[in-house]
Amino acid sequence: MPAISALDNTQPLLPQINTPADLRKLSVDQLPQVCNELRAFMIERLSENPGHFASSMGSVELTVALHYVFDTPEDRIVWDVGHQAYSHKILTGRRDRFHTQRTYGGLSGFPTPSESEYDTFTAGHASNSISAALGMAVADSLSGSEKCRNVVAVIGDASISGGLAFEGINNAANIPNNLLIVLNDNDMSIDKNVGSLNSYLAHLTTSKAYNNLRMKAYGIMKKMHLVTERRRGSILRFNNSLKSLLTRQQNIFEGLNLRYFGPFDGHDVKRIVRVLQDIRDMKGPRILHLRTIKGKGFSPAENDPCVWHAPGKFDPATGERKESVKKDEPPKFQDVFGQTLLEFAREDKKIVGITAAMPSGTSISVMQKEIPERVFDVGISEGHAVTFAGGLAKEGMKPFVAIYSSFLQRAYDHIIHDVAIQKLPVVFCIDRAGVVGEDGVTHHGAFDLAYLRAVPNIIIAAPRDEHLLRNLMFTAKDAGMPFAIRYPRGKGSNTDWHNTPRKLEIGKGDKLLESSSPDIAILAVGTSAIDAYKASLELANEGIKANVYDMVFVKPLDEGLLREVADLKVPVITVEDGCATGGLGGAVTEWFAKESPGVGITRLGIPDNFVTHGSVPKLKEISGYDTPAIVRTAKDILSRSQGSTTSKKQ
Amino acid sequence: MPAISALDNTQPLLPQINTPADLRKLSVDQLPQVCNELRAFMIERLSENPGHFASSMGSVELTVALHYVFDTPEDRIVWDVGHQAYSHKILTGRRDRFHTQRTYGGLSGFPTPSESEYDTFTAGHASNSISAALGMAVADSLSGSEKCRNVVAVIGDASISGGLAFEGINNAANIPNNLLIVLNDNDMSIDKNVGSLNSYLAHLTTSKAYNNLRMKAYGIMKKMHLVTERRRGSILRFNNSLKSLLTRQQNIFEGLNLRYFGPFDGHDVKRIVRVLQDIRDMKGPRILHLRTIKGKGFSPAENDPCVWHAPGKFDPATGERKESVKKDEPPKFQDVFGQTLLEFAREDKKIVGITAAMPSGTSISVMQKEIPERVFDVGISEGHAVTFAGGLAKEGMKPFVAIYSSFLQRAYDHIIHDVAIQKLPVVFCIDRAGVVGEDGVTHHGAFDLAYLRAVPNIIIAAPRDEHLLRNLMFTAKDAGMPFAIRYPRGKGSNTDWHNTPRKLEIGKGDKLLESSSPDIAILAVGTSAIDAYKASLELANEGIKANVYDMVFVKPLDEGLLREVADLKVPVITVEDGCATGGLGGAVTEWFAKESPGVGITRLGIPDNFVTHGSVPKLKEISGYDTPAIVRTAKDILSRSQGSTTSKKQ
Repeated sequence: MPAISALDNTQPLLPQINTPADLRKLSVDQLPQVCNELRAFMIERLSENPGHFASSMGSVELTVALHYVFDTPEDRIVWDVGHQAYSHKILTGRRDRFHTQRTYGGLSGFPTPSESEYDTFTAGHASNSISAALGMAVADSLSGSEKCRNVVAVIGDASISGGLAFEGINNAANIPNNLLIVLNDNDMSIDKNVGSLNSYLAHLTTSKAYNNLRMKAYGIMKKMHLVTERRRGSILRFNNSLKSLLTRQQNIFEGLNLRYFGPFDGHDVKRIVRVLQDIRDMKGPRILHLRTIKGKGFSPAENDPCVWHAPGKFDPATGERKESVKKDEPPKFQDVFGQTLLEFAREDKKIVGITAAMPSGTSISVMQKEIPERVFDVGISEGHAVTFAGGLAKEGMKPFVAIYSSFLQRAYDHIIHDVAIQKLPVVFCIDRAGVVGEDGVTHHGAFDLAYLRAVPNIIIAAPRDEHLLRNLMFTAKDAGMPFAIRYPRGKGSNTDWHNTPRKLEIGKGDKLLESSSPDIAILAVGTSAIDAYKASLELANEGIKANVYDMVFVKPLDEGLLREVADLKVPVITVEDGCATGGLGGAVTEWFAKESPGVGITRLGIPDNFVTHGSVPKLKEISGYDTPAIVRTAKDILSRSQGSTTSKKQ
Repeated sequence: MPAISALDNTQPLLPQINTPADLRKLSVDQLPQVCNELRAFMIERLSENPGHFASSMGSVELTVALHYVFDTPEDRIVWDVGHQAYSHKILTGRRDRFHTQRTYGGLSGFPTPSESEYDTFTAGHASNSISAALGMAVADSLSGSEKCRNVVAVIGDASISGGLAFEGINNAANIPNNLLIVLNDNDMSIDKNVGSLNSYLAHLTTSKAYNNLRMKAYGIMKKMHLVTERRRGSILRFNNSLKSLLTRQQNIFEGLNLRYFGPFDGHDVKRIVRVLQDIRDMKGPRILHLRTIKGKGFSPAENDPCVWHAPGKFDPATGERKESVKKDEPPKFQDVFGQTLLEFAREDKKIVGITAAMPSGTSISVMQKEIPERVFDVGISEGHAVTFAGGLAKEGMKPFVAIYSSFLQRAYDHIIHDVAIQKLPVVFCIDRAGVVGEDGVTHHGAFDLAYLRAVPNIIIAAPRDEHLLRNLMFTAKDAGMPFAIRYPRGKGSNTDWHNTPRKLEIGKGDKLLESSSPDIAILAVGTSAIDAYKASLELANEGIKANVYDMVFVKPLDEGLLREVADLKVPVITVEDGCATGGLGGAVTEWFAKESPGVGITRLGIPDNFVTHGSVPKLKEISGYDTPAIVRTAKDILSRSQGSTTSKKQ
């Protein structure tokens, strides 16, 4: 059986569509063909240039319908997360560059305002679309323009369960605005969706009879010119009581004063067009509920949408995935985390695992499979994940919270207020710290070291390899206070990762390379310590002696080690895979300025700008903290300081 | 008419209650008297030692009932925010120390685990109780103890509208647990409550008939031993359809799979006791909805609960408030912000004001009164406030977001993801930055400079006085990029605050006191610049010459000024009303270490610990960055550096 649905290739339409205006020239009857061609295009391109696959396959019809019915870019579409917006990119003038997406200098994998006027707002972190779109809709009504602009937020069923989306909905019904929320409900986030809102949505199907009747009633009233702004309130009330009568069912959205329409089949493009045309010009905030199938149109993806969220390269004909794990390669930090957590949890019943909609991404799924009752995937709600962990820790449990660095920004206050103030023993396993590569600007874990270091009562560490990760986790589980361990996306450096974990001395660094009279000292943390070590070997080839220290802990600092470095009277370079402001470099600098002024310190890390997408090595290169950059910096410093008084080196 | 309800003083009960166990020895019929005595006690104490008044007056009965029915401290009560927990403190062994609350060394104004085993979790920031209590409840069920511990979260109608509370509820129905949520619904946060959830709650009253019937039905079934765990599901379904039949009404909580009971009169203590006894041992998550009156039992507070949220000193007999504003005192920074925003908004129609449930606290209410259509109080949802502002800014508006510093921690990701990445011109007016005094550990604005400085594309400034605040606001409104202005709670230093605002050069500091050959240089920001100036006068008396610089901008730094300071070759002190790690001191230190190593830098600010409650001067004193501390530090540095090589001063 072929993996792809049959395609009518007699007269292709997609090549004629360079902007949504071209799409709007087509008849409604041609739209199904456009959808088919979009799917074929995506399958062809994404099989070679990997990206987020299944979400965008599921949103083809809704995307086509939105651009067909709304006057984009004058009307605004705000995509939540943006995994699902590939058809949108293809329809808005970026078809020819689509193959470049997620590569350095190419298109972003997410809607990006700097890339296109059709991309109205930053997407990447879930649940922001309703709030942002509400701001846009309110701005339009404040501007008092003649033609009211339509603003549409497109949000998935996982994203809408985030607290921010709820805050947006709660506010939307309270301000004059014409926001339309399209709920793209595929019953699935990256991993299987969770939460009571989700099971609630699953039950809404039964209200179809009601909605059909209501749409019909509304249509009739509209035709009879009975629908006026003044009458809207009473129609809404009428509809609500109609619904109660018909379905005996509770509707959360109408409880919150949003007019609800749905659920409709999200793959019936002609139907969606009709519905959108009907509700487009209604006043007041509305929600349209569409049921879609993740991976729609490509059977392997429909059957296993989790795996096909971002499948890597694959054979477009058979669906065979080409990504093969080489057996002799070091494992990912994620895998080591997952295996190690399970190993510890088997021994210690107090250990629980928590994540926020990233069980397989973080590999906490390894423990989840064997001990499901002690792993909590709380859905897209990072703040709740941390406060919930605080409650567990208060009662004697040992929660390990695995969240990506950039998403943990959502839980900053919760770390401070619900964990650190009480000094509760929560272990934060901060995944995807540092530059993450292809996902780009919204996903880099740049700030964690800086924002956490300001918080009292927390230990902050970063392992350079898998052995150290295991030792840090081992140390953290019994440290009895908040403990953050941050590690990057991807592979470590040891194939024999399974050491016997041992307890580390908290705040103690490692000397990786040391001589008594070096020319320069390099202080690093995390995998940057390995980059620094490699740099020292290159420097040695050029006759430059560099001492290399892995600080391991950003907080508390190894002051004994720093004092030894101070006594060397040589320039210092700090290196970290994170912002060069306020993190390890900041900590080391503050220490020297107070304890041993006179030492010149050059901080390497992400400079004071947001970083684009591309491969991790490329991003480290352009950010100036990879091995060649360390070598270059060391040589620069030494050549500048020759004969200067700031370097005391003889 | 006397302000207080009549009190039966013949045989006082309160003096006999030293712990909740004593309370539980009383008969149910004695509880109304306990409530009366609690109110009288609070009125007497709070009229002399000001605190949060109206919230605690409204929660007397629910507090008494909870401690009467539940086996505290073995059972856990988690208070949300904690404004309402004074009766709780009085009943849990702290009656004699109650008058010390909110003073240095005295009781905290909020529930504080380090203060009492009855205070189960940190309170202060809204909406965390459900998540924390869920963690506790889950920990109990995981521990597999015989006696299941009861866990109760008490949350107000304003707090429950926060995204975190929604995330908690959404997760609660999805994990095995016996959490009881008590919704203390007084239709009021600090300011009038907003949002559609709130108007939803207002309509729930009508379902009373249903609840009475359901409670009765459940009681009968329980007596007949028909209630078993296996049957619970079908009873719940029965109840829900019963409800649909009776009320034709939507219940959001039951939509989310929480069993809902209410609303009941929250001032009928005997009734609440009965209800709590009925639902105490039910399994699964439940919500009990109580209607209360903020300020209950003290008529002036009932009539004006906003003013009586924290009324200051007052006459217990008449309710006359004693707080008098002296006409010749400088205004609060808040008032200057409010007046100035209105002044600018009158001229510039693009300016909008946004706050998150703090319109009067921030004084954005000044603009709200005159231009209500351009001020948005979004309720307790800081994240939404910022993302909403991003949407407005994206469409050309100029949003001023006024949020307290410690609450803005909730919006860290939103600042990065929804504002800074797109470089949107949102002005953050960060109120209550630095130590805030009596509200204590959860409310200090300690971290904003540190966590914001790591973020690219944002300007960060702090005014030392009202004129500078106005100039910064004037500069920010047309800066065309994210701009943070942080200022403290309370008075500035100029009575003639109404200067003609002028545009400042971004990143330019002020020289407050300068001589060509100083002994030391002090770099400060915000009101600490004034403390530094005062210190320099004292130092001058002792023959020490200190140059004083107000950096004004923490980002970008005034590098020209720093270079001048570097050329002085004298030790440097930095001073800021915020954490000494990563903020101004961190920024200055990083600059010197790179550009001019050899200068010793001592950073003054909040040290690496959480700060308790007390007066602002006291807290600055113990944190070591008030004027005497600056004087002392300067003298220490100079005496230590005499003859040392690090100071080049002749």
